[in-house]
Amino acid sequence: MINEQNCSMLCDFYQLTMGNGYFKTKYAERIAYFDMFFRRVPDGGGFAIAAGLEQVVEYINSLHFSEEDIAFLRGKGIFDEGFLGYLRDFKFTGDIWAVPEGTPVFPNEPLLTVRAPAIQAQLIETMVLLLINHQSLIATKASRIVRSADGRAVSEFGSRRAQGASGALLGARAAYIAGCTGTACVMADELYGVPSTGTMAHSWVQMFDSELEAFEEYCRVYPDSVTLLVDTYNVLKSGVPNAIKAFDNILKPLGARPKGIRLDSGDIAYLSIEARKMLDEAGYHDCKIVASNSLDEYIISDLLKQGAKIDLFGVGERLITAKSEPVFGGVYKLVATEENGEINPKIKISENVAKITNPHYKKLYRLYDNETGKAVADQLCVYDEVIDDTKPLTIFDPDFTWKKKTVTDFTARELQVPVFIGGKQVYQLPKLCDIRAYCASQLGTLWGEIKRFENPHKYYVDLSESLWTIKHGLLGGKGGL
Amino acid sequence: MINEQNCSMLCDFYQLTMGNGYFKTKYAERIAYFDMFFRRVPDGGGFAIAAGLEQVVEYINSLHFSEEDIAFLRGKGIFDEGFLGYLRDFKFTGDIWAVPEGTPVFPNEPLLTVRAPAIQAQLIETMVLLLINHQSLIATKASRIVRSADGRAVSEFGSRRAQGASGALLGARAAYIAGCTGTACVMADELYGVPSTGTMAHSWVQMFDSELEAFEEYCRVYPDSVTLLVDTYNVLKSGVPNAIKAFDNILKPLGARPKGIRLDSGDIAYLSIEARKMLDEAGYHDCKIVASNSLDEYIISDLLKQGAKIDLFGVGERLITAKSEPVFGGVYKLVATEENGEINPKIKISENVAKITNPHYKKLYRLYDNETGKAVADQLCVYDEVIDDTKPLTIFDPDFTWKKKTVTDFTARELQVPVFIGGKQVYQLPKLCDIRAYCASQLGTLWGEIKRFENPHKYYVDLSESLWTIKHGLLGGKGGL
Repeated sequence: MINEQNCSMLCDFYQLTMGNGYFKTKYAERIAYFDMFFRRVPDGGGFAIAAGLEQVVEYINSLHFSEEDIAFLRGKGIFDEGFLGYLRDFKFTGDIWAVPEGTPVFPNEPLLTVRAPAIQAQLIETMVLLLINHQSLIATKASRIVRSADGRAVSEFGSRRAQGASGALLGARAAYIAGCTGTACVMADELYGVPSTGTMAHSWVQMFDSELEAFEEYCRVYPDSVTLLVDTYNVLKSGVPNAIKAFDNILKPLGARPKGIRLDSGDIAYLSIEARKMLDEAGYHDCKIVASNSLDEYIISDLLKQGAKIDLFGVGERLITAKSEPVFGGVYKLVATEENGEINPKIKISENVAKITNPHYKKLYRLYDNETGKAVADQLCVYDEVIDDTKPLTIFDPDFTWKKKTVTDFTARELQVPVFIGGKQVYQLPKLCDIRAYCASQLGTLWGEIKRFENPHKYYVDLSESLWTIKHGLLGGKGGL
Repeated sequence: MINEQNCSMLCDFYQLTMGNGYFKTKYAERIAYFDMFFRRVPDGGGFAIAAGLEQVVEYINSLHFSEEDIAFLRGKGIFDEGFLGYLRDFKFTGDIWAVPEGTPVFPNEPLLTVRAPAIQAQLIETMVLLLINHQSLIATKASRIVRSADGRAVSEFGSRRAQGASGALLGARAAYIAGCTGTACVMADELYGVPSTGTMAHSWVQMFDSELEAFEEYCRVYPDSVTLLVDTYNVLKSGVPNAIKAFDNILKPLGARPKGIRLDSGDIAYLSIEARKMLDEAGYHDCKIVASNSLDEYIISDLLKQGAKIDLFGVGERLITAKSEPVFGGVYKLVATEENGEINPKIKISENVAKITNPHYKKLYRLYDNETGKAVADQLCVYDEVIDDTKPLTIFDPDFTWKKKTVTDFTARELQVPVFIGGKQVYQLPKLCDIRAYCASQLGTLWGEIKRFENPHKYYVDLSESLWTIKHGLLGGKGGL
């Protein structure tokens, strides 16, 4: 099964050349701290949804190099035998902290922090990024689509257009976390428990000698779960009338009720309104209308504005690939090293100011207003700082430091949890349905302004005074706040 | 390993409900013909590159349902025990023809055709689409990027931004088919033989006490394969000068030459020109310049127009996700059924004319001009037609039938090859390097006008007179040509 495979060799070649390099220098066992974070939210959104941690845990637990892997690497002719021996006995012995899956997160926040000997911390870079980038991308996109449906159900239909099998399976998982009600993908149901559903393709209708025969046959086989695809020939002239005939001829005598009809082409707004009238007139008020066909959050919003009568949206390629922006640009950066118990913050400087990293081993807090329950701001602190939420806290913009705000009557919550300590998993993975419920409840703590699709309000992610001072010291800046 | 896993359950739920439905009707063993084809080339390009067939072959060969799968499906409470027994013994017994990987292909051409009992042909829909859509998407994008580099090397660097592990691995494979010289992904090398390379990340430079120390240490470890990343602090003020110092101090006494330097941020055109001057002045004319950082075919074309001195491009997220258009919209449509040896063509009608399918069990020919070796047109024929290339052939536009052209002195080549006959694999999978060479040679048969990035010339994909007549008969049209 895809989530049990060994992806230890799925790394960039430079992680091995660097590992071999560290192995031959005094830096072999130097402890390194890496943060995984992203710089901007896809689609210009106000926040992202963190996802993929469960797969990171499985990956770390299964990390090892087989004899075939070692032989393959030896064949490259550049690796030290001592290093190959080290890989043969490889075990991850470090610490990992991470934000739980389903948490709304913001740019420049460490979604995951690794503390480990440099070789180990470096080796896991690609898979940590790949797994969290992918699922956070899809969860973030799915959250937008689900919100656009304004309470109507959204199901994930995109396996056939996914970028590979794990794209389909873990994409369905991420979409479910973000609020989709299910998937068309059977294996995502079997592996992860994402509820799968589906009824018929156009080929079912074409296979029979007539549309009516195809519909009646389906009603006979599944009297209790009939959703008929009505656009193979002509929705209003044949599809819906034949569906109603099949309901009358086959279901009515059995006392069964149809579940729905599905529209997969044409002007969905117009067709759904007309189909709704025809179904209602025939006494099928309870027959739902399902729509699919290249939907996304913008088209769904438009359809609803135009009064479309749709109860469930099936969303395929634009969700499973996050088509409008298919890259979640998470990065993995060195933020500190440790020698003899002393932690030395590190910074990556760039001419592009947005690319300058937040140095040091850090803590991430979210501040919730006690009266409204809403999230007010996040604050990055030095690892040993503790926010005392019984006292007012003055926060400030890290770029424009004269912009200050004092927060009172709030609760501070640490967002990262320990996942591995000394190589041992200490985090119990939550059930998928619990992750989904947690995601929904956390979305409820965000102000509506942050959830706008276009030009959302910028949520505060500030630095503590101590962290700001360390960062500006490393940048060589003069003066304090 | 990812390509050995069992993805039999990676299907859409409706394939199982339809299968169960067919099982209970007289259509259970009716033979169905399905074509897999696409309707438009991503990015407005003139052609696509077919890829993914090897993985389809592996999938078909490993198709089976385990006892756990059967138990899972039984739990859904809607499947007939007879059907579950059928799945337990499931074996693919049909025929598959396909266009070999690496072939340039055009809209509405069957990349793959399946002939099998309806249940079987339907069941494999999702995986056939997923595998061919994904790799054809990446191969098509990679081909554009490689062509933009105008003879310079392009390496695939995108694993960390791929949509899942198979997105990274099979994406690297597809990119190699289309002309990339290698990948950063070690596992793609181990599994598929895509050459992997790489040197250092920013973290290597940060880990040491100074940039010069980091560079010198690397030169000591790998004197014969040094490419230094020069943009951690400041490319022209520290990165390149320190690289030259490290070459002088460490490599020169050993008689070794540096391989290159890498630029990963900033104005790559300007920086590469200045870095080139500095390297040349220091006597390192043979030191190559590698560029990375959100490249694609448009940025590479621009960089080269601006005189950038780059020898190798590392292309990441925009290749591995086909960012500009991350969906290859391949579909899988019923084109015929067969009863008692009689083949009945089927058509899917749509109000959207572009969505009307080409019915029937077909053959796909490519016509090459004997004098130039260039491809002139493709023609879809009825399965039992044979093009006689010793005689002139008049072809016509299937929509505007008065547009005719007579082709003389040509060679007709059938593009599809038999892959499975009666469930047995009859196609020997070519080696990846041979697929890559075949792709390059086939690209050479396309006129430059078809390879333009913007507004390419439309290549002719015509129907034979017999096929045109059958199609228009099914559409209910009057008259002939």
